[in-house]
Amino acid sequence: MKRVHNREDIVQAGLEIVLGRGFNGTGIEAILRQANVPKGSFYNFFASKEEFGLAIIDHYLLFMRGRLEPILRDDSLPPLQRIRRCLELLTEIFEANGCSRGCLIGNLSLEMADQCESFRDRLEGGLQSWVGGFASVLRLAQREKAIPADMDPEMLAENIISSFQGALLRSKVKRSAEPLRNFIHFYFDVFLVCREGLT
Amino acid sequence: MKRVHNREDIVQAGLEIVLGRGFNGTGIEAILRQANVPKGSFYNFFASKEEFGLAIIDHYLLFMRGRLEPILRDDSLPPLQRIRRCLELLTEIFEANGCSRGCLIGNLSLEMADQCESFRDRLEGGLQSWVGGFASVLRLAQREKAIPADMDPEMLAENIISSFQGALLRSKVKRSAEPLRNFIHFYFDVFLVCREGLT
Repeated sequence: MKRVHNREDIVQAGLEIVLGRGFNGTGIEAILRQANVPKGSFYNFFASKEEFGLAIIDHYLLFMRGRLEPILRDDSLPPLQRIRRCLELLTEIFEANGCSRGCLIGNLSLEMADQCESFRDRLEGGLQSWVGGFASVLRLAQREKAIPADMDPEMLAENIISSFQGALLRSKVKRSAEPLRNFIHFYFDVFLVCREGLT
Repeated sequence: MKRVHNREDIVQAGLEIVLGRGFNGTGIEAILRQANVPKGSFYNFFASKEEFGLAIIDHYLLFMRGRLEPILRDDSLPPLQRIRRCLELLTEIFEANGCSRGCLIGNLSLEMADQCESFRDRLEGGLQSWVGGFASVLRLAQREKAIPADMDPEMLAENIISSFQGALLRSKVKRSAEPLRNFIHFYFDVFLVCREGLT
């Protein structure tokens, strides 16, 4: 049976490769081979490699949203536990990938932010949306006095997300999830816990 | 006057370019143009682009050591202040570069760790040496009871360095040093301060 290839197949195949090799390290030929797509189809869907890269980012952000939003909205868990659970899930995904690949947004942030304004803009939007999602939950935590009243939820959310990206970077080089677990432990068992009741 | 090019010139020119464009995004031709070196000279000094990449990493680690070691050894400053001062200096360098480029070790960690074992190994060595340097100073801080006795200095050092790398990633996309200052503030004015006297 002949398979009809669509834009989604190409984006999915491209995502897998770019996660492992980076954007500059990925040739269009490798994507076509992986998706088993003739070259003409690629340019039917994407005007350029840049446009294709932006589509990968959008696809990844949508995938992540589908994984994280149900956890962030799960009101059977205390707010801080929801954020911790998100980070634990991402750590499990990293481990399931043999402690490699990591986060597309983090990878492309360091590789592409200086090189391509459209990438930087899209990555900024993605990171901002994550900060917004975490900050909403941290505001709940603040209302429940699980974090101090003088702590800015937006700043804290940005710090959690950027520190997690850093732990992912360290874990990728170490090829071990230990720095990620180390970070989750410090943040949720030490740094935020010790502030409890100080409001 | 004809200038004699040496290995150091090529490494320095390459470092500048790789910091901005990544390793895969940098062609040997661009390095040669920047260093004003004929192609033959490049291969006199480096057997391959990979060998050249490793030389850049070594050069960068040596440069960073020269900047950070005097601060870490400055016993006119309390131990935690020495680490804070190092991170502030790196933030100033980032700002002086127009909030771009960032840290070669961080950039190559995300770009190359999965692709090249020799790179991963060299990056791991570099990050370990930074962890070791910070951990020594944190042990001093622990002796002076500035951090709790039950906190593992190695784990804390690794967490500070990885979180800093994450803040650098976020700052690069935001093109602002705010996430870096945000991180330094949370870590040194909130998270570590609130533990004081809890030993």
